[in-house]
Amino acid sequence: MTAFAECPPVAPEIVAQIKAIVGEAGWSDDDIRVTAKLTEWRGKWKGHTPLLVLPKTTEELSQVVKLCYDNGVAITPQGGNTGLVGGQIPFGEILVSLERMRQIRDVAPTDDTMVLEAGITLLEAQQIAEKANRHFPLSLAAEGTATVGGVISTNAGGTAVLRYGVTRDLVSGLEVVLPNGEIFNGLKRLRKDNTGYDLKQMFIGAEGTLGIITAASLKLFPVMNSRSVAIVAFETAQHAIDLLARAKQETGGQVEAFELMGRYGLSLVLKNIPDTREPLETEYPWYALIEVASGDPEGAESSMERLLGAAFEEELILDAAIAQNETQAEAFWRLREEHSAAEKVEGAAWKHDVSVPLSQMADYIIKGTEAVLAFLPGARVVTFGHVGDGNVHFNVILPEGMDPAEFNALRDDGAKVVHDLVHQYEGSISAEHGLGRMKTQEALLYKDPVAVAAMRAVRLALDPKRIMNPHVLF
Amino acid sequence: MTAFAECPPVAPEIVAQIKAIVGEAGWSDDDIRVTAKLTEWRGKWKGHTPLLVLPKTTEELSQVVKLCYDNGVAITPQGGNTGLVGGQIPFGEILVSLERMRQIRDVAPTDDTMVLEAGITLLEAQQIAEKANRHFPLSLAAEGTATVGGVISTNAGGTAVLRYGVTRDLVSGLEVVLPNGEIFNGLKRLRKDNTGYDLKQMFIGAEGTLGIITAASLKLFPVMNSRSVAIVAFETAQHAIDLLARAKQETGGQVEAFELMGRYGLSLVLKNIPDTREPLETEYPWYALIEVASGDPEGAESSMERLLGAAFEEELILDAAIAQNETQAEAFWRLREEHSAAEKVEGAAWKHDVSVPLSQMADYIIKGTEAVLAFLPGARVVTFGHVGDGNVHFNVILPEGMDPAEFNALRDDGAKVVHDLVHQYEGSISAEHGLGRMKTQEALLYKDPVAVAAMRAVRLALDPKRIMNPHVLF
Repeated sequence: MTAFAECPPVAPEIVAQIKAIVGEAGWSDDDIRVTAKLTEWRGKWKGHTPLLVLPKTTEELSQVVKLCYDNGVAITPQGGNTGLVGGQIPFGEILVSLERMRQIRDVAPTDDTMVLEAGITLLEAQQIAEKANRHFPLSLAAEGTATVGGVISTNAGGTAVLRYGVTRDLVSGLEVVLPNGEIFNGLKRLRKDNTGYDLKQMFIGAEGTLGIITAASLKLFPVMNSRSVAIVAFETAQHAIDLLARAKQETGGQVEAFELMGRYGLSLVLKNIPDTREPLETEYPWYALIEVASGDPEGAESSMERLLGAAFEEELILDAAIAQNETQAEAFWRLREEHSAAEKVEGAAWKHDVSVPLSQMADYIIKGTEAVLAFLPGARVVTFGHVGDGNVHFNVILPEGMDPAEFNALRDDGAKVVHDLVHQYEGSISAEHGLGRMKTQEALLYKDPVAVAAMRAVRLALDPKRIMNPHVLF
Repeated sequence: MTAFAECPPVAPEIVAQIKAIVGEAGWSDDDIRVTAKLTEWRGKWKGHTPLLVLPKTTEELSQVVKLCYDNGVAITPQGGNTGLVGGQIPFGEILVSLERMRQIRDVAPTDDTMVLEAGITLLEAQQIAEKANRHFPLSLAAEGTATVGGVISTNAGGTAVLRYGVTRDLVSGLEVVLPNGEIFNGLKRLRKDNTGYDLKQMFIGAEGTLGIITAASLKLFPVMNSRSVAIVAFETAQHAIDLLARAKQETGGQVEAFELMGRYGLSLVLKNIPDTREPLETEYPWYALIEVASGDPEGAESSMERLLGAAFEEELILDAAIAQNETQAEAFWRLREEHSAAEKVEGAAWKHDVSVPLSQMADYIIKGTEAVLAFLPGARVVTFGHVGDGNVHFNVILPEGMDPAEFNALRDDGAKVVHDLVHQYEGSISAEHGLGRMKTQEALLYKDPVAVAAMRAVRLALDPKRIMNPHVLF
């Protein structure tokens, strides 16, 4: 891994002025507290900062940013520090954590919106919605720690994208402190407002490079009244994709999840994770975990039965089991969710978070596996993930008996093999994790130069001094 | 109406060079053809242009725009010329019509996307989807004429927003000729791609001020297998809004339309439109037209019955009729769709396309009506529309016996009464029609100055010479 670019030192008087703005509770030099925020959670990167700032209000943060802007001092904003690409770790930047901005500003079930400050966690957001008898569908592994500001800044994906979309689709308004310190108040709760550019879109997924999100108006959805989970077996990945297309049609878009798993990945789960068991009577090459949910109290199960019955008759599927109760549904979900843990037991792995058009997915998996095996014979390819969104986790475990150091040394070249092919398939080298510090340079190999130039122009327009997370994105 | 700003004359040699780029078929001075494009369809505005350009390919258009950019020549792009705010009419700008760019580039049902060029009409787009056994939900009165490029540039709304969102929510990729003539190729068919800012969002709803959309990747949806339409009566508008909230919950988000109508508007339809009849046995103060659709072949009707049965018991609704067949469903829809025609018979009207948060809607209708009557006693207020989206058409018909000229002279002051109140309710003065030349100045009274400054910065970054539709937006 190449060393990350560093920001120049910040003058002590600027640090003192920031401390004066936010007051005693608004900054910290407590070693444990600061170290936790400087260390990437898997231990991949360890940064440093002249000051950890912990603003309590948008107004305070506005003053801090204005001061930094006037003095050309760089800032890295941080949510729950659960990012996977190093975008949240400062290397000399002022570190702004939103952890103290935790007000629930408004919950309006009639409007199907809630306005939350950036420091509220995703799990809390789900719970706030639930209390109002509504559903906030964004859900991902790190939801207990990831924050509203963080998931919006990274346009997080998760397990419910198929039906509800990515984070971008769940945001109806934003409040943002702009790079010059001004406050953009775009917290409207409207579904329709055609009065100029939809500026909030620029901040979503910008990884903190265009401003700091301080609060968001989030969309709420109906709570479903029935739910059905099944494990289905297929001869090929293409059969699974064909069933997905049919499932969307026949349920009228009520498929909540469609997760693909190859036999090898499943076998690792069964081997390495306690209390898991073979879901069907025999082994099959491919599986999907399917979840359907409906407003009709009996709708989900009858939809699932209708769908699988017809698919059997047409020999699209080889076998299937519909969960008969909540316990069984959870057991099915565990088979999918424990994939990462099961892989870990096998040793070092290269992980790729890629997307391709769904119609190309099955072909991509075959060609990608071939390409990896040509590059590194004996490598163990595990493919699984949110196939419903065209997003697959294409992971490569080291060949049995290979020296991990030797394997890790090949990591960047291996990624190039995987990503070159993704590019040929008009896919994305970062479907849901973003670019951060880790992938920005690599992305330049694949991005349209016209698009990159336009992004730079927009960034320069909003942040002429490039103080916001300067080493992330283009 | 104040006169529209004019662009300076264009040198004849520039006109000649553009003609050379596009060839004989690529421009026109045919009087009938040109006049049709210079005239707003209701006859509200008549513009003029040094040249009507009709490019056939993105490459041709790219060269034309580059030439214009290098020479500081302004351009107005035009789709189907169905806009309601004058954004498509040039006053001295080169007029670029996309009517010859009509290729279907790709239809990929497995990916749930289709890639269409900008000149294809909305109705054709719906039909292309239908042929692939998919549904493209954007639907509006002008769909036979409005084009893909036009509806995206104006972020059109229409009748299916409640379930499917506005145009912005239906676009997965764009190809755009930028103001400097470069081609932004953002036609990816991916649902997930987190590699930088989502630039396409800037062009959606930009009313042609940031570039010219030449093709789009559009999202496709399942065809529904059952559909149920009902007319429901209420004591107050608030009761209708309460039923909407319940309908979304109980159907699991399967409400396709929820259109509010007051008794006065309905009475005008019954009085002025032939072959319409009272939908229920008695007259009631408020009505909603509700449509539910489901993937389950029996799902829609059973959902509707469950919903209305419970609402009756709780006295939330006064009366209801569920359409027993397609003819009856169409008769119900006509009562809603003929509102504009029915109003027209009554004489001059001020029309307002406003949105407020749904929770404020009933209150807004009461207060807005009071404010209008205080301003102009005897005025006849008709409120109806896509209440499911918080969007209501708040129209004011002249008092019986008033001189239309006198009434029209009060139009701008009347709009201010309506829009000031919308602003107090944190609503929008243009929910779906955009700002165009008509409303840009007025919008400046209400928009956050920080947002306007940011929009101007983004525009200046992408179009430093401000050649794209220079008198539209900020």
